[in-house]
Formats: sequence, structure tokens, C-alpha cells
Amino acid sequence: MILTVTLNTALDITYRVRSLRPHASHRVSDVIERPGGKGVNVARVLAALGHEVTATGFAGGATGQVLRGHLSATPGVTDALVPIAGATRRTIAVVDDLSGDTTQLNEPGPQISPTEWGLFLDRYEELLAPASAVALSGSLPPGVPVGAYAGLIRTARAFGVPVLLDTSGEPLRRGVAARPDIIKPNSDELAELTGSHEPLRATQDARRRGAHAVVASLGPEGLLAATPEGRWHATPPARIHGNPTGAGDSAVAGLLSGLVERLPWPDRLARAVALSAATVRAPAAGEFDVAAYEELVGRVAVNGVVSAA
Amino acid sequence: MILTVTLNTALDITYRVRSLRPHASHRVSDVIERPGGKGVNVARVLAALGHEVTATGFAGGATGQVLRGHLSATPGVTDALVPIAGATRRTIAVVDDLSGDTTQLNEPGPQISPTEWGLFLDRYEELLAPASAVALSGSLPPGVPVGAYAGLIRTARAFGVPVLLDTSGEPLRRGVAARPDIIKPNSDELAELTGSHEPLRATQDARRRGAHAVVASLGPEGLLAATPEGRWHATPPARIHGNPTGAGDSAVAGLLSGLVERLPWPDRLARAVALSAATVRAPAAGEFDVAAYEELVGRVAVNGVVSAA
Repeated sequence: MILTVTLNTALDITYRVRSLRPHASHRVSDVIERPGGKGVNVARVLAALGHEVTATGFAGGATGQVLRGHLSATPGVTDALVPIAGATRRTIAVVDDLSGDTTQLNEPGPQISPTEWGLFLDRYEELLAPASAVALSGSLPPGVPVGAYAGLIRTARAFGVPVLLDTSGEPLRRGVAARPDIIKPNSDELAELTGSHEPLRATQDARRRGAHAVVASLGPEGLLAATPEGRWHATPPARIHGNPTGAGDSAVAGLLSGLVERLPWPDRLARAVALSAATVRAPAAGEFDVAAYEELVGRVAVNGVVSAA
Repeated sequence: MILTVTLNTALDITYRVRSLRPHASHRVSDVIERPGGKGVNVARVLAALGHEVTATGFAGGATGQVLRGHLSATPGVTDALVPIAGATRRTIAVVDDLSGDTTQLNEPGPQISPTEWGLFLDRYEELLAPASAVALSGSLPPGVPVGAYAGLIRTARAFGVPVLLDTSGEPLRRGVAARPDIIKPNSDELAELTGSHEPLRATQDARRRGAHAVVASLGPEGLLAATPEGRWHATPPARIHGNPTGAGDSAVAGLLSGLVERLPWPDRLARAVALSAATVRAPAAGEFDVAAYEELVGRVAVNGVVSAA
């Protein structure tokens, strides 16, 4: 079983409007609701790849109930979310029919009490015992200590469970120091962590800070990986058009499934890039197009990178 | 008891952002949720004025449950909403911190089945018997016949209950022909109904089409009323700055409470204008500032209008 942790789950709502104009009134033509938060997206992609997944984190309020209802309808995903008094946040993605561009509105997360955080830590240890790998994804809700991920990484390491961290800012900085097996920052997150805007230099630097492997997502340029086994740049066969929401989470699912299946790094990266591209191409945000994935996975170019600047 | 009918209730959500920029990502700093739909707003203002109110219409799904939870916490309002299989719509108002301007996103309403519509009609007749007045407010959700308001007006008249209609487009056109006691269109709705952009001429024309009294809301210019007892223009003492959301619903509450209390028309209009202005001035959309109302109500100018162009 692969464990995904989403401390700041969300009810993701997608609206279609003709064209968003500030300070005007808009009739929404289409409403899609799905369970969200980065780790929940990872869980759904892992389940679609045939892995058994358990999703933990927090959920509460009417929005949390709706989220759990959607999750219970997702085959292959076991709901192990910890109930809280606060209400799960909503995110609203407003997609323009004319341009296809998306405007995002993200509610802040609910306040987590010390008791709720303690209940989560107990649940996390119970769930780690049978886990083959764990993904820690996304932002921290108010009330969760900024060093939370660092603690969760140390616990996973104590259980001998490989751990992937996908977050940003101070939680990422502290998490890296706890020596996670993989981090998957995007270019901005990596630059913020290392101070370098040169991806090759920055991935090397992030490894020196404690991450065993660093897989930087470079958007349409694919993935750049610095690992103990070598360095690679994996690129999709063509520029993919569509909605990039959830593409990074699909990459995480590709990396984790490849780790659990003991694939060599180049195969993990090819899978991650193909899943990412198939997510961009899917009509609904955060879903992936299975046919596109299968067509793309053999066509991803994975090239060794010889020298770090 | 005053009855309010809201066929398209809503869970109204207000977000504060620094400044809404299309195709960017925004962190919402503040989330306010309140029960909405125009008739529900009318009910809340009537209750705040000390009237006993019953709110009917439709509610369903998780959003409907949240709406009913908020409503049950509103003193003076009795929840007589009819449960439906579909989910109550959400409306999102995004308020810019910098400019104070609002961007509105309105979900379409849920589909109402013929059985649900039949259950509502039974409930409506039960509720009319003890009612002293009824307000029919807002748009029709999918599945409700376009002549719905016309039928509800005829039923109210058969029960001898005075009825106010506040809607737009074809439901307004058909409703007017059923001879409601009062309609409260805004300038655009009135122009659409009558074909005239000249408010005085248009209010007279709307009376000829069947409305006993027409109270046109002219935004910051106040209210223009054409009634069997005379014609008046009621204007606030000063230009009021703020959020106009719900101002029209507060005006309806002013008119209906004045009708039930058998106030002369000029007093009803003064109350409606003061409530409207106090709603624009309140910090939360659709609330009204009681102190502002009490300060303003004696300062509204109500002038007789001598001639219709």
C-alpha cells in the first residue's frame, strides 16, 4: 500500500464561464466538483495505475463530507482522513471558454487544533507500518507546525518507508533537512530553496541540503533529476496544450509508483513525464488521459546530464 | 406571518482578495458564507425588522444542508423549504480589497422535477392560508415552468393575500399579466418589460400591463413608485458608498413590511430607501446596518411626481 498525506485537502470546484471580466457578473455554464489537495490527486493517479492507496490528512465540515463522498466513490483509494472541527477549504478554478485560461481562487485551510494534530500523528504511525512508500504533498493548514513535514519524514525513515516531499517555502526548507528520499520542486520552489535560478546547479544544491534525490519539474521542458544513481533530463515528445492543474501531482504518482515497482530512474522519469503530459491534455483539471499516457510513455526522451555547471 | 418564496435559493459565498486578475492564482483572505437567494435575503431583513417570516422554495444537496443550517440560526425565520434531489447552487462574490469592487460568479440552479414542483405547490397553498403577504423573488431554476410566478400570483389572489413580485425577463412579463399587487423591477428589468428607458413612462406602462403598483429601483437615485394612490420619487439623503448586493431585497422587505403595517405609501417608500441604503453601507453583502437605517429613515425625501411625460 502507498500512503498519501494531504494536510490541506480541498474540495476542488471548476467553473466554466465565457470570459472572466473583473467587476462583472458571470453565469457559470458548467460546475465540476472533485476531491482535491495535492496528495489526494496523487492518490487518484496511483489508484488509476493499479496501486492500492490509502489517503490520510484532514477533512471536516460540509465540504469535508462532500470530499469524502467523492473519495469513497474512487476505486482503489482507502479513506483514512482524520475528522476535524473546521471545514475543508474550497478551491475555485474559473476556466474561460474563449481562451481556455484558468483563474484560481484558493480558500485558506481550516485551523487545526493541537489535539487534532496529535490524533493525526497517531494515525500516521499506524498507517506507515504497512506502507511501501509515502508522499507528503502540499501546503500546511493553520495550526500545523511549520516543521511538520520534517517530523513526518523522520518518522517515515524510522519505519524504513521511502518518503517523497512535494511542498514549498519554509516547510520544504525544513523538510529537506530531514533527508527525504525524493523532493519534487518546480522551478520557483527550487529557486526559493537554493537561491539559484539555474536548475542544474539548484538540483545539486538541494541534494547537498539533504534530499537524496531531487526531481525538478520544468513545466513544458519536462523533468530534471539529480539522484545518487545519476542525473537525467526527461522531456515530452511535443509541446502539450491544455490545463496544467495537477500535472505535478501526476508526476509524483509516476515517481512513487516507479520507486515501489523498483524501476530504474530513467523509466520512473519517463512515466512521470508521460503522466504529467497526459494530465495537461485531459479535459478535466487533475484527471489524466489514459490513452495519451500509454501513447506518450514510450516517446519520452530521457538523456543523461553530464556536468553540473 | 409574511411568506417569502425563493425557488432558486443559493449558498452565497463572499471572498476577499487583494485584486482579482484574470488567469492568475489568488489566495482568498476571508470567506463569508450566508443563506441566499433574493427571497431568503428579504426574509432575513423582515425578521430583523421584527416580523414573523416563513421562507419557502427549494433546497437540496450538501449546499442545501449548509443553507438550512444558517437559516435555522436566523431568529424569526421559519424554514419551510421543500427538499429536492439536486444540490442548491452556490454564488461566489469576489471582493477586491483595493477597489472594493465585486466580481460575481453564479452557478446555475439545480433541475427541479415535476414531482418536486407539485410538492412545492401543495406546500405553498398550506403556507398562504395564514400569510398576511407574500414575496416572490428571483430567477426560476431549470424545470420550473416559465409561467410559474403567474400561477403563484393567481393562487395568492384567490387566498386574498397581497403579493409582491421581484423577478426579470419572461417570468416577470407573465407574472405582471397575473395582476400582482406590487412589482419592484430595476431600471433594466423595467426597460426590458416595457420597451421604454424613461422610468416614469415605463412605470405607468407596467401598471397598464397588470401590476397594481410599480416600484422601480433606480440605484443611487432611489425609488420611483406608480401606485393607485399616487406617484412618488423617494431619494436617499446622500450618495451611499459600499456594496449594493441585496439592496433591492432590502427595499422589498421595506415595501412588504409597510404594506402589512398599513403604512401610507410615502412611509413605505422612505423605509424601503433607508433599508436599501443601510444595506449598501453594511460591511457584509446582503446585511443591513441597523444604526444607519434608523439614522437615514427620517431623512429620505419623498416627493410627489406630478406628470408622466
